[in-house]
Amino acid sequence: MTDIKAERHKARQQKVKEAVDAKVAAATIERGVLMVITGNGKGKSTAGFGTVTRAVGHGKKAAVVQFIKGGWDCGERNLLEGVGVPFEVMATGFTWETQNRETDTAAAEKAWAVAETWLKDESLDLILLDELTYMLSYHYLDLERVLTALKNRPPHQHVIVTGRNCHRQLLELADTVSEIECVRHAFEAGVKAQPGFDF
Amino acid sequence: MTDIKAERHKARQQKVKEAVDAKVAAATIERGVLMVITGNGKGKSTAGFGTVTRAVGHGKKAAVVQFIKGGWDCGERNLLEGVGVPFEVMATGFTWETQNRETDTAAAEKAWAVAETWLKDESLDLILLDELTYMLSYHYLDLERVLTALKNRPPHQHVIVTGRNCHRQLLELADTVSEIECVRHAFEAGVKAQPGFDF
Repeated sequence: MTDIKAERHKARQQKVKEAVDAKVAAATIERGVLMVITGNGKGKSTAGFGTVTRAVGHGKKAAVVQFIKGGWDCGERNLLEGVGVPFEVMATGFTWETQNRETDTAAAEKAWAVAETWLKDESLDLILLDELTYMLSYHYLDLERVLTALKNRPPHQHVIVTGRNCHRQLLELADTVSEIECVRHAFEAGVKAQPGFDF
Repeated sequence: MTDIKAERHKARQQKVKEAVDAKVAAATIERGVLMVITGNGKGKSTAGFGTVTRAVGHGKKAAVVQFIKGGWDCGERNLLEGVGVPFEVMATGFTWETQNRETDTAAAEKAWAVAETWLKDESLDLILLDELTYMLSYHYLDLERVLTALKNRPPHQHVIVTGRNCHRQLLELADTVSEIECVRHAFEAGVKAQPGFDF
């Protein structure tokens, strides 16, 4: 590599460094973040569980409510329960399997009651509300009740909500919103869901 | 709830069930999936680490190469190394901090050599190549060498690549591509990066 190329690289990186440093210096607020991970692409729940893994690895306390999924053997739950993360699982399975609005609503409310307790618990640093969005789009849970509990949580507490088609008002309340677009999915090419990768 | 409403719900869900069942029946192939998680939004690395957590929870063997990041205390590494996941860390830090193309290239090649060994290891079910995309966009690694190793890996092995601006040829090779769009980020509102949530 020529010296000129190395110098150019250095100058470019110096500019990046200055921009990054200025942004980091401007970000001084420390508080709990409400994050929504939505969209049709793969990776919403795993991004939530990856953050739980991260939090526990820093000695933080995390808890998980799994809405919808949970009726089967779930790799992330196996590991994280083993290291002391409490799980509340709405184990009714997918709503198109049960086809019963009344039992689904009761199951959602039971799981949400646990979520509400955790959203008041000062000792918890992170709560993952996995697949919560569907509970709102199916009207299994009352929107105002959910928003109120999120707004009144302890100021340092981080919350992650995952699921498709997140309600507009929940999106507006969120500090961070990531939308995962499905550019391509192996499932569409005939690859089946495999344990340890897809669940 | 009226009976009519309940019946309508049931009929709608029955249609969803038929569509889902047909898709699941058509997906019969079992093989390793190459997944790319790209885009500017938050959640790329955590989605990768969440999948590692999932795999380990199912008794699968996973390994992680961290490109770029890794110079600091990292929550997910703390936990996952503790449960036996090997990590190879390119601990030079961000490229705009080092500002040295030659040492960065050498560090990338050293980390990639480990990745290549793992991409030949039949005993590994999942390999996370965290932030690999930058090694290609900065030309620290040879594209052909990377593509060849990915193509020739054991057929059952899953690989996840994360990072912004993924190279077009790597996107084309991937079975599953998720693009995370940044709708909003707390950092832009002055919230600093916090341990257990952002790293």
